[in-house]
Amino acid sequence: MSVREILAQWKVRDYRTIDRQALAEITLGASILATGGGGDPEIGLLWAYHVVDEGNEILMIDPEAMPDDAVAAIAGCLGAALVLTEKPPCGHELLWCFDRLRRYMGRPIEAVIPPEAGGVNTPVPMAVAGAVGVPVIDADGMGRAFPELQMTSFYVHGVSPSPTAAANEKGHVTIADTEDALLAERLIRGAAMAYGGISWIAGYPMTGRDLKRVAIPHSISLAWELGRRVFEARRKHHDPVAATLSLTGGFDAFRGKIVDIDREFGAEKTKGFSLGRIRMEGVDRDKGHQAIINFQNEWLVLEVDDVVRCMPPDLICILDPATGEPIRTDIVRYGYRGAVLLIPAHERMRSEKGIATFGPRYFGYEHDYVPVERLASGSR
Amino acid sequence: MSVREILAQWKVRDYRTIDRQALAEITLGASILATGGGGDPEIGLLWAYHVVDEGNEILMIDPEAMPDDAVAAIAGCLGAALVLTEKPPCGHELLWCFDRLRRYMGRPIEAVIPPEAGGVNTPVPMAVAGAVGVPVIDADGMGRAFPELQMTSFYVHGVSPSPTAAANEKGHVTIADTEDALLAERLIRGAAMAYGGISWIAGYPMTGRDLKRVAIPHSISLAWELGRRVFEARRKHHDPVAATLSLTGGFDAFRGKIVDIDREFGAEKTKGFSLGRIRMEGVDRDKGHQAIINFQNEWLVLEVDDVVRCMPPDLICILDPATGEPIRTDIVRYGYRGAVLLIPAHERMRSEKGIATFGPRYFGYEHDYVPVERLASGSR
Repeated sequence: MSVREILAQWKVRDYRTIDRQALAEITLGASILATGGGGDPEIGLLWAYHVVDEGNEILMIDPEAMPDDAVAAIAGCLGAALVLTEKPPCGHELLWCFDRLRRYMGRPIEAVIPPEAGGVNTPVPMAVAGAVGVPVIDADGMGRAFPELQMTSFYVHGVSPSPTAAANEKGHVTIADTEDALLAERLIRGAAMAYGGISWIAGYPMTGRDLKRVAIPHSISLAWELGRRVFEARRKHHDPVAATLSLTGGFDAFRGKIVDIDREFGAEKTKGFSLGRIRMEGVDRDKGHQAIINFQNEWLVLEVDDVVRCMPPDLICILDPATGEPIRTDIVRYGYRGAVLLIPAHERMRSEKGIATFGPRYFGYEHDYVPVERLASGSR
Repeated sequence: MSVREILAQWKVRDYRTIDRQALAEITLGASILATGGGGDPEIGLLWAYHVVDEGNEILMIDPEAMPDDAVAAIAGCLGAALVLTEKPPCGHELLWCFDRLRRYMGRPIEAVIPPEAGGVNTPVPMAVAGAVGVPVIDADGMGRAFPELQMTSFYVHGVSPSPTAAANEKGHVTIADTEDALLAERLIRGAAMAYGGISWIAGYPMTGRDLKRVAIPHSISLAWELGRRVFEARRKHHDPVAATLSLTGGFDAFRGKIVDIDREFGAEKTKGFSLGRIRMEGVDRDKGHQAIINFQNEWLVLEVDDVVRCMPPDLICILDPATGEPIRTDIVRYGYRGAVLLIPAHERMRSEKGIATFGPRYFGYEHDYVPVERLASGSR
């Protein structure tokens, strides 16, 4: 069945066609919302372009348009972003995952939902949807990027990642099927490390009924509009940071220059994550002030002059003030200038189980979660 | 379909019924052939008794009786024998594995083949065959025990362990599907460690055609006869060691007392294996001589007075000279007396790929493989 036949069967008339330009805009916006993680956007984007260029249609629908009993699954990758750059996908990995997941479940998967907002895991599920011939849902599981499989609004609201299939470029497949989401994360992470650092995954099968209840709705169209505005600001020489702030309701927390990067090394300590902290010295209006940002694949905790200003799951985005291009944890360098923006996480990420799953204490910080709206009040 | 219906469909009239006494004899014989590994026989045996007591039939057939296009799979466990004793199976694990493996393969599994000769992995597949209602094959994949998934005559002669399903006592399932057998071992070992040390597994699906070519034939009936003779020797106060030697064509290499046990500790170093070496001082005819035996779950390399007398895949069995009970690496203690017997591995284990897969160099020894028939000539 083609994607148009599925939409006809579902009596869905409203959809958005994701073409090359849309892919570029969505990917830029998703990279900004990825809070320093989410990997190199070039990788996902190239594959998605290729899928479109081969004549496949990528059609995005509203989560509310999905039938209650149809099943969607995520598609994306899990592992170390740095490895991804050295070991790009061959394009078959996720099709193998989808095929094996279907076979294991014994039923079709009729839609793809992006797991997160990220340079890889937003365009890649679009490419998968186009290649497989199913719609992609305008929603995701985080509204940002996070490093672990269970760190989703899906899990927080009762949908298990299992069964999840993980493949590598040679067609080797691992399936983890357990209602224990932390064990699923451990099994799939283990497969990623056995594969050399990266697993391509399909999982979190969920019905339309569940999806409407547990996903972050309209996060892909938010990323799309964000990318569109930043491209426009670049063309018109407007301020891309202001464009981002006005759309997301974010806080303009700090402007500075990166003066120190302290990375952790060694697979045993980092477990395949990009782990460490950066120090920024203020410039312009923030001259004389200092910011410390801890990261674990994503920017996690911001301190300005030793006062905590943002903690997960709220978003810390560092943008190049001239271009609006996000600065990622895997490529950050000494001397970069950055505008640090803080964006409130979606309410579905802030439930009690959400804070337990990806709040500051889960990541090893000795703070109770305080929403960024309260912490950022000292910022401008 | 019941096991008798399968045999009727296959037109198989010759089979052996495995009752309680047969289970006890097979398990004792398999424990002796397990070369110090294979785990606590009580665990597998209790489950197999239970399956028989519930009225299930366990019927064993000759490998040649299996149709060329029927599919058999192994059933057993992989991991640390010590953990197994602390965390016995609930009985459902392997039924879950079988069910998921069938579903993933999309076809029935019509027979069980034991993966190895061992106190757990010989009676357990019999229990599975009885519980599932399929025959068990009079063959295995080693004719002894070995620690890793790929260390089988199956793999050595071209049958892949994939897909393999691994479950724990909570019904959590991992499936590894890769033609790379070392990666499959790594994935399933990772699942075992994530599960707390033990994976219950079903895998190595193979046709009857392949099975006849790659399995160690009649190893279960050998274990059965061995167990029967040792029980008989105990009853009649005959020498159980002589009974073992006469049946297996083994060498009576050393008689001594264990005077030192040097175990490695720490999961990172041992990777879940029982790892170390024992030292024995000779008694009686071997007084004044010394034996060193290295182990990794199984006894691997024997040196007598600094001369290597046996290396893998040939079998080193240490028996209590009074009872014929095997001394295992996981329970060996200072002061035990032991008769060290050496038994030539089956020819199917001695191919070039076999020596590369489980010969001395694979385990880190700086020796080329020499068959025990030549090495043992200095022994009595």
